[in-house]
Amino acid sequence: MAFHFEILKKDETTGARLGKVHTAHGVFHTPAFIPVGTQGTVKALTPEDLREMGAEIILSNTYHLYLRPGHERIRDLGGLHRFMHWDHPLLTDSGGFQVFSLNDLVKISEEGVQFQSHLDGSRHVITPEKAVEIQEALGADIIMCLDECTPYPAGHAEAERAMDLTLSWSQRCRDSSRRDDQALFGIVQGGIYPDLRKRCVEALGGMGFDGYALGGLSVGESKEMMHEVVSQTAPLLPLDQPRYLMGVGTPLDMARAVLEGVDMFDCVLPTRNARNGMLFTRGGKLVIKNARFADDDSPIEPGCSCYTCRHYSRAYLRHLYLAQEILAMRLNTVHNLHFYLNFMGQIRQAIAEERLKDWVKTCYAQWDPEETDTGQQDPWGSSSRPNRAGAKKRGEKSFV
Amino acid sequence: MAFHFEILKKDETTGARLGKVHTAHGVFHTPAFIPVGTQGTVKALTPEDLREMGAEIILSNTYHLYLRPGHERIRDLGGLHRFMHWDHPLLTDSGGFQVFSLNDLVKISEEGVQFQSHLDGSRHVITPEKAVEIQEALGADIIMCLDECTPYPAGHAEAERAMDLTLSWSQRCRDSSRRDDQALFGIVQGGIYPDLRKRCVEALGGMGFDGYALGGLSVGESKEMMHEVVSQTAPLLPLDQPRYLMGVGTPLDMARAVLEGVDMFDCVLPTRNARNGMLFTRGGKLVIKNARFADDDSPIEPGCSCYTCRHYSRAYLRHLYLAQEILAMRLNTVHNLHFYLNFMGQIRQAIAEERLKDWVKTCYAQWDPEETDTGQQDPWGSSSRPNRAGAKKRGEKSFV
Repeated sequence: MAFHFEILKKDETTGARLGKVHTAHGVFHTPAFIPVGTQGTVKALTPEDLREMGAEIILSNTYHLYLRPGHERIRDLGGLHRFMHWDHPLLTDSGGFQVFSLNDLVKISEEGVQFQSHLDGSRHVITPEKAVEIQEALGADIIMCLDECTPYPAGHAEAERAMDLTLSWSQRCRDSSRRDDQALFGIVQGGIYPDLRKRCVEALGGMGFDGYALGGLSVGESKEMMHEVVSQTAPLLPLDQPRYLMGVGTPLDMARAVLEGVDMFDCVLPTRNARNGMLFTRGGKLVIKNARFADDDSPIEPGCSCYTCRHYSRAYLRHLYLAQEILAMRLNTVHNLHFYLNFMGQIRQAIAEERLKDWVKTCYAQWDPEETDTGQQDPWGSSSRPNRAGAKKRGEKSFV
Repeated sequence: MAFHFEILKKDETTGARLGKVHTAHGVFHTPAFIPVGTQGTVKALTPEDLREMGAEIILSNTYHLYLRPGHERIRDLGGLHRFMHWDHPLLTDSGGFQVFSLNDLVKISEEGVQFQSHLDGSRHVITPEKAVEIQEALGADIIMCLDECTPYPAGHAEAERAMDLTLSWSQRCRDSSRRDDQALFGIVQGGIYPDLRKRCVEALGGMGFDGYALGGLSVGESKEMMHEVVSQTAPLLPLDQPRYLMGVGTPLDMARAVLEGVDMFDCVLPTRNARNGMLFTRGGKLVIKNARFADDDSPIEPGCSCYTCRHYSRAYLRHLYLAQEILAMRLNTVHNLHFYLNFMGQIRQAIAEERLKDWVKTCYAQWDPEETDTGQQDPWGSSSRPNRAGAKKRGEKSFV
């Protein structure tokens, strides 16, 4: 099997690791940020744009592609890599998170999840075996086990039930996985309860996955709660396999999780914020429609080497945004993703040069890594997931 | 003055000419198609994309940029070339056509046009002097005289009045033009009346412009009527200056007008159709959302060398379009503009090789250039202008 994780360096004073993940479609370096290409495209960008800004791996959503255009169609067209013209590492999620967050009428059973399409109301059932079958048809290099993502807040009993179900489903995913050119990751659930997270880690470890994800975070809990779960759980995971914090977060969230030993992140923040005119800079977020940028000839961030900052002024980007031009979304996305990927590149370099902790400190004076519990303001705002509100409504759903 | 028109070759049997237009920002080859970048951007594309597909000159709309972000702001930011990162030939229209087509309450007088912004209802007056002032602030290489575009249908008296006003305004534009790095084009009006068109050509010629446009076409009249006006009027224009057919048209419309001696064209058809999922191919238009493309692994047009056709299937483009992905608009626009620019490149080559008439005949079996009055179907549909319906409503507007 082509997949393996090569650890190049371990930070002496933190949990951070520098690594390379080898997949059937090439290598990506860790810690890695994974841009989100929900429907088989990172919105507004081509694969060439993504490579130019340093993206080595991207993510696509199984739920969306299963419903439209259909996984069998994509398989028959040569697989998702070919379909979307991305010949590099690719990850698909299991579809579970979207089933829960995009649907009001979800029925969860030991067998799987039943839901109605958000597109046309048609009924579907996804079992663990089906989630693997869909992902094998799509053909990503890393695929994920079906899990039940516990909403926040959830009591210990509900979190435990969801975790037990996740474990049962994980074993079935493991058992039904057939392709040896795909890595299968297990997802740790357990809500905010350390005992559940620990039990989940141990049980998943016994099943033997190619990597492990921390799921059920950034679903409504506070930022400090999230980091507490990460700091408690990440160190329990197998040392020699990649660790993936799903759906997180701001640059600061990622830096903090890297210090705890997390290797992979995906998040819609840079791309979605870009389309809403919120741009990431070292100092925080810049809202491009602000009137003070109307005559501002400077780039989004002076010194930034992205295509957008090399050629366009804040005044022009504000004009494009107010005029609702498509190019606004494209140029803003280029900048924000470049910021994220460059941020992660700086983290990797700081690990290589054994100065990660200092880098985080000096780069973000607003945050003191010695006091992660103070709840200080994140200059880049909250880490949120699409339809988090939907996920929080999970109380309405029935367990049958 | 940097501007001049160099005629490289004249076709023996038709009116077609092969040429080069020299501007303050470089050269473009004629016959030329000019992509439309209404609000300071060709929707969804960067200047690099445009250059890669062979665009040498683009157009931007004075009306839109005057209202937002404002011509003085653009001037203070270094001019439109710099603002939009396009360091090549650039043309702006006078704003007149949009004033008439995007506004219901327009008052036309000898002084100029009074209208309300389609954005916020604010009142504005554009005089010929103001149209020049705005275009000098924007700084395009080719600027246009303010004209009154006669709607269709218009009687002889109305067309004559509009033409006389256009002549008066043209002289005032000529008199108020100050920048010697900008070429000023006059616009021939006169509706569908040969006597008026002829008088207008002669009067404009006496004022001495750097080029001449045929205006007031593709505003609701039949295709054959339009071509009749072109074939009657183009040969009357000065031989040694560029001729520009504004807002036209389908590839076939352009080919026919080239045969009559037209050198420049602009039209929103390729870009607007692209965003609506209508793609140009040699055989006609392809509607990408059609179910028959769902599993079609072939490119839009086999053999097409555009970026989109080199990397993406009809199945993928259909998926992107149905999923309302931004990338759909971008990839479709790349293909359609490439088709138009490549089409014009083939016309230039055919002129150079003295086989234009044969090229047109063999390439478009559906159309016989010997029988332009037959009203045969254009494989690429009708040539329409944005808000043509609005322009046709002109009867409601008052002449004060």
